[in-house]
Amino acid sequence: MEFKLDTRLWSTKARNLNPYVPGEQPKHDNLCKLNTNENPFPPSPKVAEAIAEVLSNQADQLRLYPAPESDDLKQALAEAYKLEVNQVFVGNGSDEVLALVFASFFLKERPLLSPDISYSFYPVYADTFGIELVKIPLTEDFSIETNDYRQPCSGIIIANPNAPTGILLSLEAIDKLATEHPNAVVVIDEAYIDFADQPEASAISLIDKHDNLLVTQTFSKSRSLAGLRVGMAFGNPSLIEALTRMKNSFNSYPLDRLAQAGGLASVKDEAYFEETCRKVIELRQQLTSDLSDLGFSVLPSQANFVFARPEQGNAGEIAQTLREQGVIVRYFNQPRVSEYLRITVGTAEQNQRLIEALKQRVSA
Amino acid sequence: MEFKLDTRLWSTKARNLNPYVPGEQPKHDNLCKLNTNENPFPPSPKVAEAIAEVLSNQADQLRLYPAPESDDLKQALAEAYKLEVNQVFVGNGSDEVLALVFASFFLKERPLLSPDISYSFYPVYADTFGIELVKIPLTEDFSIETNDYRQPCSGIIIANPNAPTGILLSLEAIDKLATEHPNAVVVIDEAYIDFADQPEASAISLIDKHDNLLVTQTFSKSRSLAGLRVGMAFGNPSLIEALTRMKNSFNSYPLDRLAQAGGLASVKDEAYFEETCRKVIELRQQLTSDLSDLGFSVLPSQANFVFARPEQGNAGEIAQTLREQGVIVRYFNQPRVSEYLRITVGTAEQNQRLIEALKQRVSA
Repeated sequence: MEFKLDTRLWSTKARNLNPYVPGEQPKHDNLCKLNTNENPFPPSPKVAEAIAEVLSNQADQLRLYPAPESDDLKQALAEAYKLEVNQVFVGNGSDEVLALVFASFFLKERPLLSPDISYSFYPVYADTFGIELVKIPLTEDFSIETNDYRQPCSGIIIANPNAPTGILLSLEAIDKLATEHPNAVVVIDEAYIDFADQPEASAISLIDKHDNLLVTQTFSKSRSLAGLRVGMAFGNPSLIEALTRMKNSFNSYPLDRLAQAGGLASVKDEAYFEETCRKVIELRQQLTSDLSDLGFSVLPSQANFVFARPEQGNAGEIAQTLREQGVIVRYFNQPRVSEYLRITVGTAEQNQRLIEALKQRVSA
Repeated sequence: MEFKLDTRLWSTKARNLNPYVPGEQPKHDNLCKLNTNENPFPPSPKVAEAIAEVLSNQADQLRLYPAPESDDLKQALAEAYKLEVNQVFVGNGSDEVLALVFASFFLKERPLLSPDISYSFYPVYADTFGIELVKIPLTEDFSIETNDYRQPCSGIIIANPNAPTGILLSLEAIDKLATEHPNAVVVIDEAYIDFADQPEASAISLIDKHDNLLVTQTFSKSRSLAGLRVGMAFGNPSLIEALTRMKNSFNSYPLDRLAQAGGLASVKDEAYFEETCRKVIELRQQLTSDLSDLGFSVLPSQANFVFARPEQGNAGEIAQTLREQGVIVRYFNQPRVSEYLRITVGTAEQNQRLIEALKQRVSA
């Protein structure tokens, strides 16, 4: 049914939204889907087992509301990351967690600071909540210069590794940012941190030192559970309490019983998690090397994707050609990055299919 | 770990929240849990089958993001309710849907109107979004007088059947409200509508007539899926579009893959759904009769709970005595309703256990 859009009854806020546009989720099979940074490996088999157990032994449970604060899942995360349970928050994917973060900490008179090239949902949240976002340009080589953040602000949000560049900021730099902005909340969005070469890259180790530091993570990437919607935040109990109150003013039960059970099983299977991350890191190294051999300039990625600029040819056209061959990558037609393709690290077979498609193009 | 709450880094919005307090979810077994209006019967067996199928045949799917707009589930709902798919919205429980409704339609200079006794999350949302909520008193017998709503407003929100009274508003009255307020969005929150005696009680039949009428429903009550978090809204495509944009400015993927598959299976099993509703209605009639025999005044409920006032004794003390016997009901220590208990309709055995506990108390 076609309809004529009528915004007469909408709030001004609704009229002024600039919604996030997720990477497409095509329904066709046999596509080589390297566009939304999903993990090429399935989740731990323990996840399906735990969910099946809820369904079989306790099917009756689905009729009951879930634990509103996801207590068992938070407890497991606290143990895994050697934290107290009141330093842990969970939500319906890290996107929901980030929305609550914006409302809880950045809705102030001073602006929020974020790199000019970063996760494209940040400006959307800023618009949604009426927050002034000041974009701090990355340096020429797409890295973050912490001195550029020396200005009054309500907070700073940085994706680390950054998206779509994949470049990692050091713990020393994060420590410096948190120290230099004691009255601002510094949020490190670590969606991709588990793919870093060094295992100690996470800023979680700094939250006991800085009461203004909040770290967000997700089950969607390194835990292969984008389909289950679980995200989390780690920080000082007073920051966690703000998020909890904000959650309970929007939606009390954001995680269903199956997501809580599946998430818990994933956290407990540490060996599978570490093995998967190691394999993705190896595949990234191989993909980087293969793309370089084809003349691409590849930024030094610590994530499960690479950001690569072709030696010649238009990146948008290359993305289109790849699509015609059934290989989907992400292209951002935006200043500074329009010469690049963001390519998710796939399985060895998927990466090979991409490389073959690119070779065909070169030889054509 | 005890901690001293420090709100220094919170936004003013975070400091001023009055979060919703859900009914408790005790973890002990053998409790007779009649406090949160869950369905006493399990969901359709097709739900567990559909989820098990995602896990077994397609376990790999959990690594992929879900369909952001829950297309298949919306299509099934459209067919079940004889609507176009662009008249349907789904969210992470009707609580999330309602939060988006408040931001999309009520965030205006004129106030929102709602009955003084209704779902206790409404004032929480109003606080969250900074919306002025004017409470219109129910009449002496707890019914809604539509003429009392004749005042300038951004919108009207009414739970129908109302909570915690269980009293149903007629379609004629809803038709009148929508007609008399062409520039306000009239939201009918039908969480409990499927338990009405007449099968045609839903205002969905009026949405083609009124472009300002929005109906919300949930899978948590009549579909026995409180544990899965699925809610929906039905209305004119322009209203649905506002909700979609607002969703995509907060959280693009609120329904995980399992919730989408389970919800779809539930919608398709219409026979099970109707049978369950019929059984709950019969049990409500029996419970009402048994409580009346014990001297309770029971409001005429069309929901899966009853609101009952004891002939003598303090309602709060009775709730406490019941709790000591393992029977949990909900008590609201608030003006006008503090003499009542809200009792969820349980299985025949649960209802009997409640009645026996109340009899013991009388004879003690």
